Amino acid sequence: MRIGIYGYGNLGRGVEAASKKSGDEVVGIFSRRKVASPFGNAVYPAGTAQGFKGEIDVMVVCGGSAADLPEMTPRLAADFSLVDSFDTHGKIARHVEKVGAAAKAAGTLALVSAGWDPGLFSLARLYFSAFLPDGDTYTFWGRGVSEGHSDALRRIGGVADAVEFTVPSDSALSQVGRGVRRHFAPGEMHKRECFVALEDGVDRERVEREIVTMPEYFAPYDTKVNFVSADEVAALRGKMGHSGRVIRLGESGNYETSRHRMELSLSLGSNPGFTGGVLLAAARAVFRMRARGKVGCVTLLDVAPRDLYPEEGVFGLI
Amino acid sequence: MRIGIYGYGNLGRGVEAASKKSGDEVVGIFSRRKVASPFGNAVYPAGTAQGFKGEIDVMVVCGGSAADLPEMTPRLAADFSLVDSFDTHGKIARHVEKVGAAAKAAGTLALVSAGWDPGLFSLARLYFSAFLPDGDTYTFWGRGVSEGHSDALRRIGGVADAVEFTVPSDSALSQVGRGVRRHFAPGEMHKRECFVALEDGVDRERVEREIVTMPEYFAPYDTKVNFVSADEVAALRGKMGHSGRVIRLGESGNYETSRHRMELSLSLGSNPGFTGGVLLAAARAVFRMRARGKVGCVTLLDVAPRDLYPEEGVFGLI
Repeated sequence: MRIGIYGYGNLGRGVEAASKKSGDEVVGIFSRRKVASPFGNAVYPAGTAQGFKGEIDVMVVCGGSAADLPEMTPRLAADFSLVDSFDTHGKIARHVEKVGAAAKAAGTLALVSAGWDPGLFSLARLYFSAFLPDGDTYTFWGRGVSEGHSDALRRIGGVADAVEFTVPSDSALSQVGRGVRRHFAPGEMHKRECFVALEDGVDRERVEREIVTMPEYFAPYDTKVNFVSADEVAALRGKMGHSGRVIRLGESGNYETSRHRMELSLSLGSNPGFTGGVLLAAARAVFRMRARGKVGCVTLLDVAPRDLYPEEGVFGLI
Repeated sequence: MRIGIYGYGNLGRGVEAASKKSGDEVVGIFSRRKVASPFGNAVYPAGTAQGFKGEIDVMVVCGGSAADLPEMTPRLAADFSLVDSFDTHGKIARHVEKVGAAAKAAGTLALVSAGWDPGLFSLARLYFSAFLPDGDTYTFWGRGVSEGHSDALRRIGGVADAVEFTVPSDSALSQVGRGVRRHFAPGEMHKRECFVALEDGVDRERVEREIVTMPEYFAPYDTKVNFVSADEVAALRGKMGHSGRVIRLGESGNYETSRHRMELSLSLGSNPGFTGGVLLAAARAVFRMRARGKVGCVTLLDVAPRDLYPEEGVFGLI
């Protein structure tokens, strides 16, 4: 499979490293910045990508979900079959629709929102619910950086730089671990730790108030704000590890012995490194499904698992 | 979806109970024995099943893998689209081939080897390997009853009844838990606990020697044989809980931070109860795929996850 990497930040570098493990050929990396590849892959200006139409089987689109992907993925789908990791959960249905329209018109196939969540965790939520319909699913993230929440901090006036760590609540984890089926409000399941570097002369109290009262992002949570130097924020931002788990508690019958528990847990040394591997497996499925004539936009939930696997025979895994 | 249940042992009862949770209509239960359903479903003689052709969308075939399913599933595929839980891992490829030939000739669709292992664990092994190609996968089962190993005990001359519990090795679990990537021999990963009731006047030492030296089943393992009464065996056999986990350790790059760990773990109150839910989800996928024209034999690895899920919209899970 010949891939292109569009966008060369942390995620693009993760995809490039993962390609060394999967054995996929990187035809080119496309970046707005002039940078060199540590693996010796060719880096081209982003604007030249279209010229590689026909030479790239699947483009791996590596941009941010807030500003980049909503514009980038539909545009690139006009020339390439592709994958992306669009991760704003509430806007995925709309993204699929927009990308699907572009891909259908162009006769390409796109797979969007691949990664660990959305992605592997979406798969777990679906399988768990399908296999055990009477149950409750709990998703815990962290400890790890949330890009969306870090962005929200950085948009506050007077903030020079910031990073947010999402931390699961010990109490909620322990209740679910003991098999207690109950509803948790979002703020009962996670805590938010913010590390914020201010511009000179900015009022700490005002910034802290803006953070802890921010609707959806921080107000519902136990939020701790730490004011630190820009260097400290940068060092914390370099910690790209993450973890999380999806747990389902449920019952297949009406007996004590009908209670079941399923759990998928991940512990990632590097969030973009792991996501890179998921994107390349998704790209393989796109390559195969497009070869069978499929066009439009799908997610991992639409893909037969076998299509993700490098080898043809899967009975060794069964 | 209108289902039939063919075979009414523990698994058939698990499917019946799960149908109350999934809302599927049980048209009939087919059994060689004269028994009543606690849910008031109609129980017909096994030989009359063919007469329900056209009234049953998917037959859930609930037989043993050793003697029943290799004959039952291909035979029933001539009249019904169906699912089974054939679980002799090394013979699944051959089972798919035989069932596929019958199903193709009849224009039906069969999904075989659905359950937790093979089934959900096969899915985990495939997704984990596809997303993290440079890694090692470890499957641990137990503590729980292995039907295959219990059968092997019961085939020994002089054994009146017996049950085997498979137990994961603490040492192997702890090494994998610490992220140690190494090869384990089968006997290093699991222990085997046997509870055996003898017929009158049988030589214990001879039976114990036959057990611990039995190739593949017991010889490679730390095997403990306990001689108990037939009543004690029956009581232990009633414990249908099981558990297990699939763990993959791997690396997406060449750095300390590129090390990742994925784990799927299950804790089941009742093995047949949980398997019943998986079989009904698989039946739903068969129903939908057959309606789109698919015939032959598949496993869960060939099924787009979305087809297992009761509702049409899946974006709430993504």
